[in-house]
Amino acid sequence: MGIYQEIDGFFNPESIAVIGASATPGKIGYAVLKNLLEFYEAGGKLYPINPTRDEILGLKCYKSILNVPGSVDMAVIVVRSKMVPQIIDQCGKKGVKNIVIISGGFKELGGKFRDLEAEALEVARKYGIRIIGPNCIGVYDPRTKVDTFFQPKERMLRPKPGNVAFLTQSGTYGIILLEWSAMDELGISKFVSYGNKMDVDEADILMYLKDEPYTEVVGIYLEGLGDGRKFFQAAREFTKKKPLIILRGGWSEAARRAALSHTGFLGGKGRIYEAAFKQAGVIIARTLEELYDMVKALARQKYAKGPRVAMISNGAGPMVQAVDAVSVEGLKLAELESSIKEELRKNLSPFTIVENPVDLTGSATPEDYKVAMDILLDDPNVDMLFVFFVHQNAPMDKSIIDVMKEINKKARDLGKTVLAGAAGGPYTQSLNKEMEKAGIPTYPIPERLVRAAKALYLWGKNVSGES
Amino acid sequence: MGIYQEIDGFFNPESIAVIGASATPGKIGYAVLKNLLEFYEAGGKLYPINPTRDEILGLKCYKSILNVPGSVDMAVIVVRSKMVPQIIDQCGKKGVKNIVIISGGFKELGGKFRDLEAEALEVARKYGIRIIGPNCIGVYDPRTKVDTFFQPKERMLRPKPGNVAFLTQSGTYGIILLEWSAMDELGISKFVSYGNKMDVDEADILMYLKDEPYTEVVGIYLEGLGDGRKFFQAAREFTKKKPLIILRGGWSEAARRAALSHTGFLGGKGRIYEAAFKQAGVIIARTLEELYDMVKALARQKYAKGPRVAMISNGAGPMVQAVDAVSVEGLKLAELESSIKEELRKNLSPFTIVENPVDLTGSATPEDYKVAMDILLDDPNVDMLFVFFVHQNAPMDKSIIDVMKEINKKARDLGKTVLAGAAGGPYTQSLNKEMEKAGIPTYPIPERLVRAAKALYLWGKNVSGES
Repeated sequence: MGIYQEIDGFFNPESIAVIGASATPGKIGYAVLKNLLEFYEAGGKLYPINPTRDEILGLKCYKSILNVPGSVDMAVIVVRSKMVPQIIDQCGKKGVKNIVIISGGFKELGGKFRDLEAEALEVARKYGIRIIGPNCIGVYDPRTKVDTFFQPKERMLRPKPGNVAFLTQSGTYGIILLEWSAMDELGISKFVSYGNKMDVDEADILMYLKDEPYTEVVGIYLEGLGDGRKFFQAAREFTKKKPLIILRGGWSEAARRAALSHTGFLGGKGRIYEAAFKQAGVIIARTLEELYDMVKALARQKYAKGPRVAMISNGAGPMVQAVDAVSVEGLKLAELESSIKEELRKNLSPFTIVENPVDLTGSATPEDYKVAMDILLDDPNVDMLFVFFVHQNAPMDKSIIDVMKEINKKARDLGKTVLAGAAGGPYTQSLNKEMEKAGIPTYPIPERLVRAAKALYLWGKNVSGES
Repeated sequence: MGIYQEIDGFFNPESIAVIGASATPGKIGYAVLKNLLEFYEAGGKLYPINPTRDEILGLKCYKSILNVPGSVDMAVIVVRSKMVPQIIDQCGKKGVKNIVIISGGFKELGGKFRDLEAEALEVARKYGIRIIGPNCIGVYDPRTKVDTFFQPKERMLRPKPGNVAFLTQSGTYGIILLEWSAMDELGISKFVSYGNKMDVDEADILMYLKDEPYTEVVGIYLEGLGDGRKFFQAAREFTKKKPLIILRGGWSEAARRAALSHTGFLGGKGRIYEAAFKQAGVIIARTLEELYDMVKALARQKYAKGPRVAMISNGAGPMVQAVDAVSVEGLKLAELESSIKEELRKNLSPFTIVENPVDLTGSATPEDYKVAMDILLDDPNVDMLFVFFVHQNAPMDKSIIDVMKEINKKARDLGKTVLAGAAGGPYTQSLNKEMEKAGIPTYPIPERLVRAAKALYLWGKNVSGES
């Protein structure tokens, strides 16, 4: 069986056993089983395993996986770490091909726990079982409803199906990325939190995602690499086809030690990895917000064909800062054609600042935006359009969403890129969500918008073979 | 009349005239009048001025301010720029002492519009009138309900009364800061958006806020300084009493030009200002989020008595990045006493990582947090406690809020500082809001928490006279 089928097994099982299922709300073994009820309701087979119970959450409970009638494709393990090798052996005998180990208490504690992890792996290898974890929150696939999380749905939003895959060594960061995605209507193809990665690692998953048809962009949060050579080779192959953004934690000396006791990996030395990442075509993010921002840009706008930016707003403050950020990030303010400036002057109020950035001022209406953006997109010197909004201003209204849909379509037809900036309370947030649904990535502050645009530009260079 | 009374007039008028009031929803002159209805309902006198109307929004309308019976303390002007000098002259005759000019169309357009601004100022000086603006959104005081914004309340949240003052050259940034404050339950003392600052500038307002009793911390967004010497002197005096955070936009060459056409000021040259700011005791923010984050920290936790940090979480990922950030920002990971570590080991599960950072792991309950934080705060090597949460985890619940109230009280009694980190969807956001209400500033990503903590540390050095 090839790596594609092996990893695909985690997202497409017909039957799942939860070993260590609990009947007590608040317990991890209860939360995991409960979250898998949607998988069961969608037609999957779901088996709670617990020697002391006959039934949990309306499902028949088994003393051991060996007692389950029929075959089991995948097991989710939530028992104490010292029992895990023996449980894996039972899984092997049952013919299980994929295991997710949620439990911690392995390599991250060092000493004899490190040996326990090695022992568990040895048993798995004997049966050809592939393992994700331990010390993780596991996998999520919104299409097949596989959801091994111990975060109840009323506390953690799940995103809809889409084109983004996130991989993360930290479950916490995984949770945050998924909830941000859900709030922005950003869809997910596959999600893996792999913790100590005793078996399946980022390289394995990347080789799978390279060919997985729903996935168009991948974001990874990484603390330490086990086999660096394997990883960089996989990354290089992956980035020939799809964009890959990486956030690396634990590069400072003190943080490297903290990473060691987190998932048992020493964080990458200093900034040595940085050059290797770049050589492998990886785009580097510096914070979790940036990882998310960049992934969102690439999921919605694909790439930028050049670095030349035109900006427009009805409140100039953010543009002043965006211009600063553009100069820091190596993008460029487009020099507008004089014929374009003439058009703008002719069609807009005399108080409009007709330069790049274009300041429509606080009296601008959605119609003013439309007229101005339509003209700006025709300028051959413009690769990207950054559109900032003060939706709160009295002369604006919700018709701006339809305006932006039209502008986004025109931009796409011209091979140009559109990003938006707006921040505020519930009213602005609801418009930002509409903007996202229309395919325009939207950011609260200009620096974040510009960094996301930089990712589009870097990937554009990759696409054109320029880098 | 001293500067205190002059500036205080903008926040405590008994009567306000809106010159250019409109009866048409969507118009700026309508929005401004409507937002001032709360001032009127609270007992203030409110006069719409418009030569073509008898009544607007149920208020008697006057053809000119000269027709208003009785005195008028303050005028808000929203008419076309060319009419402004003549309007100011009428205000002067009427005895108006404070004017807010919302309208643009002055210095920011250059040429004859620059002359128009000078002319308007000359008229004002003749009568001793103080002016805020033009080209701004004006002032907001949640205690007296003075609210000159043209952003309707259903589109823009207003924060409650509190101890924070924001000053901003950009109205857009002002709107965002106020809505973020409202969502976090962060209270405002005074707010001023001053745009072109033809008369009243940051230095004037700082000298007022230095003695204004509600204001405990000030945040400023600044593009360019008119009279730098005056400003730095005011800042130096201000920071002897209260903390001052500044975000400066427009430092790149291209952005300096953009700033010029925004509010008519050339942005500060290169990074020259930076040293002068620091010398004046100012804390420098790099983005709008950071300005807000730092102000919030200083509004809630006052200062940090030292740089030594202990961290704790039920999901270690963010702590790995926080350790990186601590090393970048010149804070320190506290070396825990061995007796403290012994206490932690004795009282927590064997899977807890008892180091700094402390990893309670995903099975932690609010009680585990309480036990651990209580012990950590007793360590004399700890100045600040960074508490990260995965509220989404099944074993957590809302009782963590009461735990944090107790811990925050203990920390305050010991002169120590507490900041929290958590991110996610609606469930986590609602807990974050409770955390904020309990006086614990809370941040979505560790880098933002650490930068805010840095501001507390810098102000602490100032308070102790160390810097």
